[in-house]
Amino acid sequence: MKSLPRAFGCPVEFSLELLGGKWKTVILARLKEGPLRYGELRRLIPQLSDKVLTERLDDLQSLGLIVREGDKRVSAYRLSARGETLRPLLQALYDWGQEHARELDVLINARSSVGQVSRRAGR
Amino acid sequence: MKSLPRAFGCPVEFSLELLGGKWKTVILARLKEGPLRYGELRRLIPQLSDKVLTERLDDLQSLGLIVREGDKRVSAYRLSARGETLRPLLQALYDWGQEHARELDVLINARSSVGQVSRRAGR
Repeated sequence: MKSLPRAFGCPVEFSLELLGGKWKTVILARLKEGPLRYGELRRLIPQLSDKVLTERLDDLQSLGLIVREGDKRVSAYRLSARGETLRPLLQALYDWGQEHARELDVLINARSSVGQVSRRAGR
Repeated sequence: MKSLPRAFGCPVEFSLELLGGKWKTVILARLKEGPLRYGELRRLIPQLSDKVLTERLDDLQSLGLIVREGDKRVSAYRLSARGETLRPLLQALYDWGQEHARELDVLINARSSVGQVSRRAGR
């Protein structure tokens, strides 16, 4: 991952640099619901290639926003303590998207959300 | 601006597509504090070229998140009603950046913020 610039014009610019690129934040939003294994993330975000998902997970670990736990065979990713501090922000992104999708005539894929919900419910 | 995709994997992905790219959100965060003229935005976000700032302002108008008011000679940009709904999200981005900059050894440029604050105080 490219190193973080050391100065920003405003706090929003800094937050966005850290979360930068859509996919890191989408991954964090999924992990907000609970730990997920690589294959589960892959299934929940099918638009991402293996290469890009792996890179973004590495980036998020470098930034100290997620941790990987377990052994190599059965490992899962979860939010770190620092990642947990993003929870209100991730929720605000979720809420806004949820509320405005219909107004902007956009479809949110219910299938992948339901998949995660039912998996959690079955724990 | 490229047209918006019609389906997304989750609400967060949709929100980020709309805000996509760092600069649109940085502009919105500045306008959250009040209407600003083009030259003021240019000064507050000096990293942006005229070309890119103009493009991002056009994008934000197309998305219905900001409006331009006044005549051509003295016009200002402000958040639209839809843009106003982003306020909690923009605040969450600001708060998180503000809180974590020191921890990550990052400097937020106080000068440009102070510029905006004092201008507003002098109204």
